[in-house]
Amino acid sequence: MPYGTPEERLAAEGIELPRAPGPLGAYRPWVIFGSLLITSGQFPRRGDGTLAYTGRIGSSVSPKDAYAACRLAAINTIAQLKDAVGSLSRIKQIVRVEGTMQVATGYRDHPKALDGASDLINLAFGEAGRHSRMIYANTEMPLDTPVLLVVLAEIRD
Amino acid sequence: MPYGTPEERLAAEGIELPRAPGPLGAYRPWVIFGSLLITSGQFPRRGDGTLAYTGRIGSSVSPKDAYAACRLAAINTIAQLKDAVGSLSRIKQIVRVEGTMQVATGYRDHPKALDGASDLINLAFGEAGRHSRMIYANTEMPLDTPVLLVVLAEIRD
Amino acid sequence: MPYGTPEERLAAEGIELPRAPGPLGAYRPWVIFGSLLITSGQFPRRGDGTLAYTGRIGSSVSPKDAYAACRLAAINTIAQLKDAVGSLSRIKQIVRVEGTMQVATGYRDHPKALDGASDLINLAFGEAGRHSRMIYANTEMPLDTPVLLVVLAEIRD
Repeated sequence: MPYGTPEERLAAEGIELPRAPGPLGAYRPWVIFGSLLITSGQFPRRGDGTLAYTGRIGSSVSPKDAYAACRLAAINTIAQLKDAVGSLSRIKQIVRVEGTMQVATGYRDHPKALDGASDLINLAFGEAGRHSRMIYANTEMPLDTPVLLVVLAEIRD
Repeated sequence: MPYGTPEERLAAEGIELPRAPGPLGAYRPWVIFGSLLITSGQFPRRGDGTLAYTGRIGSSVSPKDAYAACRLAAINTIAQLKDAVGSLSRIKQIVRVEGTMQVATGYRDHPKALDGASDLINLAFGEAGRHSRMIYANTEMPLDTPVLLVVLAEIRD
Repeated sequence: MPYGTPEERLAAEGIELPRAPGPLGAYRPWVIFGSLLITSGQFPRRGDGTLAYTGRIGSSVSPKDAYAACRLAAINTIAQLKDAVGSLSRIKQIVRVEGTMQVATGYRDHPKALDGASDLINLAFGEAGRHSRMIYANTEMPLDTPVLLVVLAEIRD
């Protein structure tokens, strides 16, 4: 059973949320519409803003690194959620996770890679983290990122 | 003019809804947010869970099979909607259909293929089925599926 | 500071909104769900309905043309919003912009290209135009379009 706040659950795993990264263009990193919080696409960035992973999943990016890249993009996305609502306990439900992956010819294991994001979100939010999900498989991504992650979350009243 | 319930309209076409397929990873096949029901990506699966179509639209998958694959993915998606709300008459409106297709170089007829999903949804739901739509054209999809389908639907109060 | 209505701001830039383009298949160009207006994917069409740009960003489509194509797709999308709500002053907030681009191997500058859409939306709607954003990089798009654009917008009560 999950316990404590999402922040406490992440800390128990040794995860410190980075500063919420800024946008790469003329848009916002997140928007609130009614009780729906929508992030823009998030990269697998380190705390200093640089990408921890680049390349193509299924060739230069190993299955293990693909999982780790999706996990790190989820950490950056959770940092956006926290930037938007202050306390992650205000997240009532993770509604949808979109993982857009940069993949090599013949790659088929997208679901296992994206579980890097899903597992972390489930760990942080417990039952409230159980989300719908969609995978997009692209060939040439911005900054050569192996993944861009979007989260839609419901905010408590 | 459409008549009867969506279930009756589907039955009149000889379509039996399969059991709603389970997820391929650490996520849920559907989530409800307020009055919005969102499915995860659905495959063109047979009743036994195996994929009825695999390959690339525009090369190994013919135009006819591409249409049929999108139609079958829509049947699986409607099975998810029914799993979520019990009776399809509770669907007030199909809000959005997302078709992510695995296509070959030079393929341009995505709209005709995705009409396989749109036509079925329009048949099942009549005026309430008239949806917005988006096409994504990917190269390497999970399980070598020719299409992954997502539906956003509004539920009646 | 922006001033006047979105229509006035666009006119001051010499932009005339075209007739809202019709769909390419068995779907609607836009749908309203509660206070959320969702468009289907929009092309960079001229007023006569033909595509002003075709080809692959990063090879046959130059960076300048990629920006212009995204801008033109945004003009078509705003025409859809106006078709849906009558007056663009009824748009309370642009919630999300999705840009799906047809790109060449090695292309990395998607954010700069999609700023063609974002800059125009920010110009037209001012503070209310500040949106979240997602980029998808596809290889083979319908009609050989370099971009398909989707907008989610909140409507005023």
